Amino acid sequence: MNKGAGKVYCIGLGPGGREQMTLQALEAIKDSQVIIGYALYVELISDLLAGKEVIASAMRQELERCRQALELAQTGKKVALVSSGDPGIYGMAGPLLELNSREGLDVTIEIVPGLTAASMAGALLGAPLMHDTALISLSDLLTPWEVIEKRLRLAAEADFVTVLYNPKSNGRPHYIELAREIFMQHRSLQTPVGVVRNASRPGEEALVTTLDKMLLAEIDMTSVVVIGNSQSWQAEGRFITPRGYVL
Amino acid sequence: MNKGAGKVYCIGLGPGGREQMTLQALEAIKDSQVIIGYALYVELISDLLAGKEVIASAMRQELERCRQALELAQTGKKVALVSSGDPGIYGMAGPLLELNSREGLDVTIEIVPGLTAASMAGALLGAPLMHDTALISLSDLLTPWEVIEKRLRLAAEADFVTVLYNPKSNGRPHYIELAREIFMQHRSLQTPVGVVRNASRPGEEALVTTLDKMLLAEIDMTSVVVIGNSQSWQAEGRFITPRGYVL
Repeated sequence: MNKGAGKVYCIGLGPGGREQMTLQALEAIKDSQVIIGYALYVELISDLLAGKEVIASAMRQELERCRQALELAQTGKKVALVSSGDPGIYGMAGPLLELNSREGLDVTIEIVPGLTAASMAGALLGAPLMHDTALISLSDLLTPWEVIEKRLRLAAEADFVTVLYNPKSNGRPHYIELAREIFMQHRSLQTPVGVVRNASRPGEEALVTTLDKMLLAEIDMTSVVVIGNSQSWQAEGRFITPRGYVL
Repeated sequence: MNKGAGKVYCIGLGPGGREQMTLQALEAIKDSQVIIGYALYVELISDLLAGKEVIASAMRQELERCRQALELAQTGKKVALVSSGDPGIYGMAGPLLELNSREGLDVTIEIVPGLTAASMAGALLGAPLMHDTALISLSDLLTPWEVIEKRLRLAAEADFVTVLYNPKSNGRPHYIELAREIFMQHRSLQTPVGVVRNASRPGEEALVTTLDKMLLAEIDMTSVVVIGNSQSWQAEGRFITPRGYVL
């Protein structure tokens, strides 16, 4: 074990564009000797990597990346573990801290937060998240569908604005349809729904539709879907949830 | 009505420190001729204001600020309406877009997202938000307590990690106690609770405690409180919610 000068920065790059990165994220990347990340995310910062060791890996090797980062930090290196969005929201901060703690590695870890997909989608759609909001991932890779379904039911009943992360993949094309059915039991068919794809990246699309018509929108792995609460409305293509001010 | 070159940037400064601002927010401030905001937020960017018209106002004049921003944009000016956090989460984006739409002003508005308090608190506490999360404001200025209470009950039942915004003020010191009682019906007393005050500002404190002991922590208007789900745990003062990886 070598605490030395080694450390891991767990960095959120935000949705993808440089303009949404924080200054803290830029500084942490500059300060790092090694950059580790899923190849697509490393590509987003390719202009910042001169002189650095770069370890780009395939999808779904999250634990492997955490382990590598911790091992390199133990040799005294400063390591940037990069990913999109906020590493603290469905990201790498959890497994990294867990591994470090459970294996008694005692590596210094700094979490560098980033703009999460919900915030970026909100800005592109208008102001959908102005009132109490639930974030729910539809991915069943790590969570049983029964748990996801229960949360959808209760979020719909609670009248939360609801942001669906990982709304669809090839392995589970029907969950988004099931989610819609659950919300139809508690919301009008005219409830605004926002679908944002490739936020802040090439091919960016932000569409405001309704619960009735949402399945006509193209929804994929890179999308975020926002379902309004009972007070949400739309005007000029913008999706607005009232905060409650009397205008 | 004059669409001209006038526009309103609705800008999120993030939690407070310059290092968590995005490059987009910095650019939008630079591009603006007029800066409007609550005095405390304007103070955060005092070094960026040379040569600009500055309109700093007292608390709770949100609608007045929106109206001023829209009026100035109608005269052809570029106006930055600044606030902390993300303007799309309990912020100014909603009332600004609503006023613009309801009064038919047709002013160009660009929402510039910022790091919300939940993300910053998460990074300071560890990794509490790694699974499905609800954001609930305990402020009853614009929302009846009955609605807030119902959402707390359903969030607790759904096993959401729950982030409480505006947890306490002089006018409503007891809501945080009521919220705790609701969660005690669904969570163990040892559930981790994080309390973050003055995130990314002078006097920053991030404390990890438990549902049992949370009322011993100093909680005020500038705080965010994070209550774990049934799987959350703490180690070395860090609050971790598992994502579900088998380590």
